[in-house]
Order: sequence, then C-alpha cells, then structure tokens
Amino acid sequence: MLWIESMKNDRVKKWKKLLTRKGREKERLFLVEGHHLIEEALKEKIVKTIIIDEEKEVPKEWTVNEKEIVRVSKNVFKEISETETPQGVIAVCDMLKQQKLTYDQGKYLLIDRVQDPGNVGTMIRTADSAGFDAVILGKGCADLYNGKTIRATQGSLFHMPVYQHILEEIVNGLKINSVKVYGSALKGARDYRSVEKTDSFGLLVGNEGEGVQEQLLAMCDEKVSIPIFGQAESLNVAVAAGILMYGLSN
Amino acid sequence: MLWIESMKNDRVKKWKKLLTRKGREKERLFLVEGHHLIEEALKEKIVKTIIIDEEKEVPKEWTVNEKEIVRVSKNVFKEISETETPQGVIAVCDMLKQQKLTYDQGKYLLIDRVQDPGNVGTMIRTADSAGFDAVILGKGCADLYNGKTIRATQGSLFHMPVYQHILEEIVNGLKINSVKVYGSALKGARDYRSVEKTDSFGLLVGNEGEGVQEQLLAMCDEKVSIPIFGQAESLNVAVAAGILMYGLSN
Repeated sequence: MLWIESMKNDRVKKWKKLLTRKGREKERLFLVEGHHLIEEALKEKIVKTIIIDEEKEVPKEWTVNEKEIVRVSKNVFKEISETETPQGVIAVCDMLKQQKLTYDQGKYLLIDRVQDPGNVGTMIRTADSAGFDAVILGKGCADLYNGKTIRATQGSLFHMPVYQHILEEIVNGLKINSVKVYGSALKGARDYRSVEKTDSFGLLVGNEGEGVQEQLLAMCDEKVSIPIFGQAESLNVAVAAGILMYGLSN
Repeated sequence: MLWIESMKNDRVKKWKKLLTRKGREKERLFLVEGHHLIEEALKEKIVKTIIIDEEKEVPKEWTVNEKEIVRVSKNVFKEISETETPQGVIAVCDMLKQQKLTYDQGKYLLIDRVQDPGNVGTMIRTADSAGFDAVILGKGCADLYNGKTIRATQGSLFHMPVYQHILEEIVNGLKINSVKVYGSALKGARDYRSVEKTDSFGLLVGNEGEGVQEQLLAMCDEKVSIPIFGQAESLNVAVAAGILMYGLSN
C-alpha cells in the first residue's frame, strides 16, 4: 500500500485538479467521497484508486486490490476532501459511460441551465425514485461530477442514465418518436393537475431565476405549471421537478 | 448616518453574535441579507438597522430613517455577511411575532428534526406556495433565523406563520379539532396517491436520515408514503414534502 504525506507529491497534485470541472474533463476522472457512495461506485466497477486517511481503514468487505489503495496523511486528505465532516475515504473513479440515448417510449427529465449542483443532484435522485428512464443535462447546468451534485444524488447517478447533450436535439428526437414534451413555465401554462397522466413523456425544467429558455419552451408540446396559492413567487426548481415528475406519471 | 470601520466597534461585535442561534435568541434579533429579502422585511416593519457596505447605496424607494442606516467598511461588512456574492446590504430585524396558533380547519406542515437549513427554508417556501396555513418546527430543527434557512424561504418566512413548538401537542391539538394528521413514512404506509384530497389536514415530515420519530408517527391518523419506482432509497425531504403538500391538497 502506497503512503503519501507530501502535498507536493505528483499524485496529490493530480487529485487536486479533479476538484475542478476542467481537471475532471481533461482526465475523464472524478472523485467520490464517503462510504455509501463509494460502495455504489465499486458496484459499477469504475473505482481506480482509493485514498484513505491515515487514521482510517478500508472496510474489509470492499473488494479492492491492495495496489489500488493509497494511504495519506491527515493534511493531504484535507486538501482533497470537500465535506465538512469527512469519513476519511475518497475514490478516484472513471467517468460513467452511457449507452447511446434512444428516444423510446419512456420518461425523460430535461434540465436547462440549473446552476446549483445541489438542485441538479436532487433532481437526479428524484428522477430515479420516480422511475424515470434518463436525465439529460443541457449546456450551462452544474457539473454532474461536482462533489455537491454527486452527494445530492445520494448514489442515484450510478443507477440513472444521465446524459449531457444539446436540449433542442433531445426535444426534437422525443417529438419525432411521439414522446410528448412538457415544458414547465410560470405563466401561460396549463395546470399540471389537469394533464392526463402517462408513462411516456419528456419534462423540461429550467434555471433557478429564469426558468426554461423561451426558444426551448416554444418547442414543447405543452407548457405546464404548478399553481401558487400563497404569496410565494415560485417554487424551488428541485421541488417543482419532483411535484411534476410524480404528478404527470401514472 | 453612522460610519463604522473598526471590527472592535461594539455594534459590530453585537451583530456578529447574531450569526449564532444563541446570540439571536438572546437578543431576539436576526439578520436579513440582500435586497429582495430586506424589502419583504421592511413591509413587515421589523427592520431596526440597515447595514450598508461603503461602496453601496440604500435604494431610494426604501422608506427608512437616516438614523437607522449604518455605513460600514468593506472589511466590517465581510465579517457579518454570510453570502458568497454579497449585495452589500444587511438588515437587523426583530424576530417575527406570531398570533397564537389555533387549530382551525386548514393545512399544517409539521417538521420533525430536519437539520439542513436549506431543507427547512425550502419547505416553508413550498408551504407558502401550496397555500398552507402554518408551518410548525419541532425541537431539533434547523433554526428559522439561520441565514441559510431565510435565503431558502425566498421571503416566504415573512408571509407564512411559522411556529416553534412541541409537535406532540400540535398533533393532539389538530386531532381534537378533527383535523386529520398524516405522517410520512417509508414503510407500512399508504400510497399518498390513494388518499382522498382535502383542504384540511396536518402533514408531518421528518429528519433527513431517520424520518419522523416513531412515537410521533404512532400518533398520526395515517401513515403515507411516496412510491419509489427506481433504485433510490428515499427522496430528499424537501422534495417529498412538496410532492405530499400538493398531492394531498385539493
């Protein structure tokens, strides 16, 4: 088992680069922190290296090769950890490979420029719960491999096909295949409660402040909204997406 | 207009104490940051002092007395600000006064030990949107006056009666007044989609990891759950609360 205590070690420098989107995309690697999430990553066979804090142990039930474990000093661990109360274990993982996206009958969540990684991660978790077939992140969304996104998915990113793609193409692809696409909007939209529930549709949700872009919304088969009965101006996007994912499904 | 540039100034020290729950509860004051939220606080007439960054101006349309404005140096402002990209204005406010809680027909959200202030704030925002009459925070919840809670409410804490109270008493009070109480649970519960929608009920949701406490759940008229169709183990509590608040209401 390798032991690293210097911040200047090349591997430490490389890991630190994985804390940025640019670094992750260059190396096609990302970091996963904490026991539960790493166990999910192990099932997916994407773990390349396990970084363990000097005072912690790799759980015996994990099937990992000794060669893949690196023990590091407290200070080195802190440099790479992104959580407030670290569990002392981080995995370096290969980015997830997705099958080619098909436009079969099914349920699809399309996310337009949602910037908060917690919101993106929470929506992936909800899409998994609601039995969705895929989540598609358009340009301008928080990074799927951001530590906060991953933690908010609570592991659902390992179960749920998540694509990064141009949303116009996805909307068109779904419509060509007769999968109806609903765009969430605050105004000029139909109350979601009056929409007939189905098992095949696309749902498009948008940016925290601005909602879905106009040109994308215009491409949708129908605009849907959640009625506001009180004085709030809008709902949090992850909550709204949850209400719509369950509310539009059978 | 007062000008403060020293961190050692007594007012600065007092404001810094308002960053902790203990300090807020002692002084019965809290801080509100950013234009939108302060405008809501001004409407409620709870603003005592406006702290403005040396490079910013108090908007002309705000009806505030010159005596109530304190201009501070960049460094002092940073000490009190809790946001990543500060708008340069913070208001010191009196805690909100609530009418005595009645147990009339209506919709009530009861929150048991939800620890993340973002979750608590988001649920208050959703309760406002969904036309709920009151939110009750039980013991062990994130503080209503935590900066993160306030920001997540997006101002709904100023529109929505929010009480801090022992939940057992609330559940009993509602039941005595024939307001049905639903407790959210993962197991042994009825699918919320089969519950008849009404305009009068209590909904009890619980801690991120553990859910609602057993003894509280046992007091409810019925346990309800949201079906999980995928591989996720559970939903985020704020998303679940949103689905149930809308899903159980007319």
